[in-house]
Amino acid sequence: MRRFPEPIQHLMAAFARLPGVGPKTALRYVYYVLKQPTADAELMAHALQHLHGHIHICPECFTYTETEICDICKNSSRDHNFLCVVEESRDIATIESTDVYKGCYHVLGGLLNPMDGITAETLHIRELIDRLRSSSTITEVILALPSTIQGETTMLYLAKRLSEFPIKITRLARGLPAGASLEYADDITLGSAICGRQQT
Amino acid sequence: MRRFPEPIQHLMAAFARLPGVGPKTALRYVYYVLKQPTADAELMAHALQHLHGHIHICPECFTYTETEICDICKNSSRDHNFLCVVEESRDIATIESTDVYKGCYHVLGGLLNPMDGITAETLHIRELIDRLRSSSTITEVILALPSTIQGETTMLYLAKRLSEFPIKITRLARGLPAGASLEYADDITLGSAICGRQQT
Repeated sequence: MRRFPEPIQHLMAAFARLPGVGPKTALRYVYYVLKQPTADAELMAHALQHLHGHIHICPECFTYTETEICDICKNSSRDHNFLCVVEESRDIATIESTDVYKGCYHVLGGLLNPMDGITAETLHIRELIDRLRSSSTITEVILALPSTIQGETTMLYLAKRLSEFPIKITRLARGLPAGASLEYADDITLGSAICGRQQT
Repeated sequence: MRRFPEPIQHLMAAFARLPGVGPKTALRYVYYVLKQPTADAELMAHALQHLHGHIHICPECFTYTETEICDICKNSSRDHNFLCVVEESRDIATIESTDVYKGCYHVLGGLLNPMDGITAETLHIRELIDRLRSSSTITEVILALPSTIQGETTMLYLAKRLSEFPIKITRLARGLPAGASLEYADDITLGSAICGRQQT
């Protein structure tokens, strides 16, 4: 492979570290940046330098925040009776975009996966329990974790650990996604949709 | 959609300008950067700031270069009898990786596409002609442009414009790609492979 000029190689190496970006895509990004005005590259550089210094983790719910306590935790108009447990900070954005949930969140920071060294101690589970212990308002914990093996394991584990509290523990409904036909649904999904059928 | 903290939004907007990157992928990149050490973000920022200032265009072949004249143009051990015409700077890397071609290059900077305002005047065609006029060494021009409508049009145009010079004008062979079976080849490719058959 031809040796590119060093400035191109450096930026290519940096882009190639992004998730899902290989050397060819990284090179495509570099050539794009080269074709844009210098100001655009500066803008991206400043945004990168600004990121770590101005974003920290909310001590309540462990999401990324710009302020001391995140916007959701300090918002008194949110329903503090509900606590939604999510895997990552980005899941909050996804749930918020549905405009259905008005409660608070708790970011676990991952899913149980002992093979990869992710145990109950490395996740924010102790903090979740402390939060439930010290709270007098939380009446329901919604486990909004993915329906994967790790997600299901984590939900089972959490349901067991949280059973000591006199609160409702729920999980997201399983069923047919919007626009799906029965023909292409897998057995587990269709089975769950039948068991969890709702009155119209 | 939930309003993200501003530093996240800014970097997301910057990433979303890269080719093929939408807001979801941009957000994935931002979360990745957030999880990495600050030094990694700094490295990418520096590479970005370094790029435009240290990369310029070779006045001979119009490729991106770090030095005054690019490595290939100033390399006297390259075969200066051959001139390979490519669309973009990145194509040079692709051809160089084959280790087959040892001649020089000329970057057009695009393909003829009058609908998008790309005419012979906006490409480096005049410079190609000047280069051929002033050169006493070039004996063959290889048109290594893509086999798309724009590529074919540009090759036809160039073949006509360059016919005034007593040099050989060639184009890349069309035929079956390595590992391809006849069954899945399209008619034009297979037709070209038959016409351009080679003695074993």
